[in-house]
Amino acid sequence: MSKETIKIAIAGPRGRMGSEAVQLVENTDHFQLVGAIDITYDRKKLSEVLSCHSDALIYTDIHECFTETNPDVLIDLTTPEVGKVHTKIALEHGVRPVVGTTGFSEKDLENLRGLTEEKGIGAIIAPNFALGAVLMMKFSQMAAQYFSDVEVIEQHHDQKLDAPSGTALKTAEMISVVRDAKKQGHPDEKEILPGARGAEQNGIRLHSVRLPGLIAHQEVIFGGDGQTLKIRHDSYNRTSFMSGVKLAVEQVMKIDQLVYGLENIME
Amino acid sequence: MSKETIKIAIAGPRGRMGSEAVQLVENTDHFQLVGAIDITYDRKKLSEVLSCHSDALIYTDIHECFTETNPDVLIDLTTPEVGKVHTKIALEHGVRPVVGTTGFSEKDLENLRGLTEEKGIGAIIAPNFALGAVLMMKFSQMAAQYFSDVEVIEQHHDQKLDAPSGTALKTAEMISVVRDAKKQGHPDEKEILPGARGAEQNGIRLHSVRLPGLIAHQEVIFGGDGQTLKIRHDSYNRTSFMSGVKLAVEQVMKIDQLVYGLENIME
Amino acid sequence: MSKETIKIAIAGPRGRMGSEAVQLVENTDHFQLVGAIDITYDRKKLSEVLSCHSDALIYTDIHECFTETNPDVLIDLTTPEVGKVHTKIALEHGVRPVVGTTGFSEKDLENLRGLTEEKGIGAIIAPNFALGAVLMMKFSQMAAQYFSDVEVIEQHHDQKLDAPSGTALKTAEMISVVRDAKKQGHPDEKEILPGARGAEQNGIRLHSVRLPGLIAHQEVIFGGDGQTLKIRHDSYNRTSFMSGVKLAVEQVMKIDQLVYGLENIME
Amino acid sequence: MSKETIKIAIAGPRGRMGSEAVQLVENTDHFQLVGAIDITYDRKKLSEVLSCHSDALIYTDIHECFTETNPDVLIDLTTPEVGKVHTKIALEHGVRPVVGTTGFSEKDLENLRGLTEEKGIGAIIAPNFALGAVLMMKFSQMAAQYFSDVEVIEQHHDQKLDAPSGTALKTAEMISVVRDAKKQGHPDEKEILPGARGAEQNGIRLHSVRLPGLIAHQEVIFGGDGQTLKIRHDSYNRTSFMSGVKLAVEQVMKIDQLVYGLENIME
Repeated sequence: MSKETIKIAIAGPRGRMGSEAVQLVENTDHFQLVGAIDITYDRKKLSEVLSCHSDALIYTDIHECFTETNPDVLIDLTTPEVGKVHTKIALEHGVRPVVGTTGFSEKDLENLRGLTEEKGIGAIIAPNFALGAVLMMKFSQMAAQYFSDVEVIEQHHDQKLDAPSGTALKTAEMISVVRDAKKQGHPDEKEILPGARGAEQNGIRLHSVRLPGLIAHQEVIFGGDGQTLKIRHDSYNRTSFMSGVKLAVEQVMKIDQLVYGLENIME
Repeated sequence: MSKETIKIAIAGPRGRMGSEAVQLVENTDHFQLVGAIDITYDRKKLSEVLSCHSDALIYTDIHECFTETNPDVLIDLTTPEVGKVHTKIALEHGVRPVVGTTGFSEKDLENLRGLTEEKGIGAIIAPNFALGAVLMMKFSQMAAQYFSDVEVIEQHHDQKLDAPSGTALKTAEMISVVRDAKKQGHPDEKEILPGARGAEQNGIRLHSVRLPGLIAHQEVIFGGDGQTLKIRHDSYNRTSFMSGVKLAVEQVMKIDQLVYGLENIME
Repeated sequence: MSKETIKIAIAGPRGRMGSEAVQLVENTDHFQLVGAIDITYDRKKLSEVLSCHSDALIYTDIHECFTETNPDVLIDLTTPEVGKVHTKIALEHGVRPVVGTTGFSEKDLENLRGLTEEKGIGAIIAPNFALGAVLMMKFSQMAAQYFSDVEVIEQHHDQKLDAPSGTALKTAEMISVVRDAKKQGHPDEKEILPGARGAEQNGIRLHSVRLPGLIAHQEVIFGGDGQTLKIRHDSYNRTSFMSGVKLAVEQVMKIDQLVYGLENIME
Repeated sequence: MSKETIKIAIAGPRGRMGSEAVQLVENTDHFQLVGAIDITYDRKKLSEVLSCHSDALIYTDIHECFTETNPDVLIDLTTPEVGKVHTKIALEHGVRPVVGTTGFSEKDLENLRGLTEEKGIGAIIAPNFALGAVLMMKFSQMAAQYFSDVEVIEQHHDQKLDAPSGTALKTAEMISVVRDAKKQGHPDEKEILPGARGAEQNGIRLHSVRLPGLIAHQEVIFGGDGQTLKIRHDSYNRTSFMSGVKLAVEQVMKIDQLVYGLENIME
């Protein structure tokens, strides 16, 4: 089925995520790259500064970009600080923002919600664009309504500094919305070696494995009478984020409010 | 929070599933076992013929059971033929049936739907009461909207005769509702040994492992750009069905129509 | 190929492991049950006190059992204290002991080694008869020579009190024989929640999952440049020990010394 | 502990494997890169034609390379045809070859064996340098002595043309050395959909999964009474081969014969 073309501007086209997004837009039939926003290279063609085929211009002034190229959607893959500013300006110009960043406070979101309502257009802010990871978290939340005992094992390469991972913490948080905090395991269980039973958040046990060779993996295990249910996501490289960006661009055209988190546009 | 007591009759109390259900009702605070239906032992106490504590009577006549014990819910764990008859009689008596069997034709269901509407009470028919398996299938259907490439690996003990398993076929069927049939794998892929790529249903590949030691396991694997999502259910014994029976009994009190398949009462 | 019959006495025939062993001997063509040793039922037939077909007699006096029935092998599945005494008496009678217990001190083993040499017959003491678990540990030790980064995840039902499991500790111990202690993970890694990185033994990280539904599972994960190697054992019930007992009985006939640990008779 | 320096020449330094090998040698303290063999760039420094720091010279004549640089070891990562010629010349010059190719016939190997004996030096030919994959196959062969029921599930990206993979076939072949061919599964098992039970080699079932996102994975599953043993290898990128090359270089210095297959130098 043929789809109406969506005109897109990309902020941060030379970053790791941004350059993948340029590829995505170029490779998607009903997406059209009309402009880019960068801190330098004003009025250069994208193909002059990036290995791509696009003749779309780079703008250092986001207002000029919006006025001259008239995009439907802004894909913003810059930093939290810049992304926040861009999101507001985009909405004021009637451009629907798709933003991949985590820096928004509750108050920021409130203000942006007001703007989307005023303008009657959609906006999507997503801390995680990996569809598989988002589904893993969403399914975990659903499963926790029926299985109240759950542990999370996340596995990453040994260059990762923090444990547990942000995704593991977010998973526990989403589960805690539908499940009361409870102590799991035997009431008298005993750690012969400290740490064996992992970290705890609202009674949910979290285990972090760090080994060379691993990339980014997480398994959520639910246990009940005579059965276990496991939901696992393996992320092998950055391209895993692009199907989420694509989905968000398509969905942001259909909604007229702010959505925070991809899980809220997935049924 | 205290819950209102639900009065329950069980048909087939001496069967493998039925005797587990007796245990379940005895062990659940807000469930009360008021009677049982069996082909023999009329008017004996359950505790006389079964290792349990219940003084509820056994009836060989289902009408007498309903009239004398006035149950809210009938749990029927008999055979497809008997279950069908019981379901109809229960609805006529205003008793809400929870039935675990697969023998209903589309016409049977139509008739029963009419009866539930007429009586204004709920009924639940569930071919599979293992909550984890039902969730695995439901999540697989949801994930297939976002990941169109999927394969199913089911693993059972080597005494199982049929391959693929009923659950694997049902999973593929549920996925096919939301996904168009498509050829997966490389267009030029070649089986050096026949069967290597498994069985195919609507383009979904199904693999059946049979080994001593295994019990009943299934993994559904979705692949996309740079990521995989896996949903796995392990069933170790029959008690895995009882949490599904419990959920169905609680839900059947809240609905006023026929529901076929536990997935339709799980959000 | 036909095998020579091995005459066997079993100590502790009414215990959980012992009654499985009676079944094993009855179901193995070249095994013959000639007697049993128990604390009661002197001179009764086994079939009188146990659901089995054997007419072999029970003896409360182990010396009488050995003198009258003249077994080749004693399978001892009693307690550590009793097992120790039985092992010594068996060797003195020229009966080869196969013992499944953990209570032997280094000094005990030294004495028994002397006895086996003196008598010129074999003896096998095995803390773990599950062949799969023994292979998992043996393979882990071998792999650790080539992959120095390793973590262990063991998963058990939530009625288990101690964490990590004995098998996990034993695995770490066996790996430490071939691998120098080392700190794994990033030198600056940080636990945001305490316990996330698990317990540590000689630098090996151990994680213990406890959930209802689980039985007894362990995975050993090795990581190296661009690859991981995983060895996993799942134990579903007690019959998993019997193939190890069978192997030990066959091997003890071929050796003329004491072997501690099944891994030392497996190539 | 300090190790004696090994002088190394690399044939095929600009290939995908070869350039990784140059990195390996540069990054290993006791390895010294003394020369390279290529079809062009005679007498250029490696650093002139490759992104590396080595001043070692490239030779288009292998004899001149050996005579002038006097290496201990030749790492050959060219093609089967060229590799065969290089291996013979290396041995004639007293240089120990480490060769990663599959093109040797039984007669080729016989001739090379003669040469190694004559010269009294070692040679290693390895079709697979991924240590984890080699260990998986070796462990599978060992486990098959104790568990005669086994199935192999290999999982690759959907650009792979052949199924089953070469590693799966090699695994089945190695298992068949220690296990008699046997029919697995129930004697009356029935495929409702053809291919469900996978491919068969000597009674071993092989299943091939092909999905986007996957890289290269294989799991070997053994089943026995009440237990399963699983050995799994995940290969994420080409660097996984380099630890095997390193091991081979170190071992080839210690042996005085031809070894075919890394599994034969791993204990």
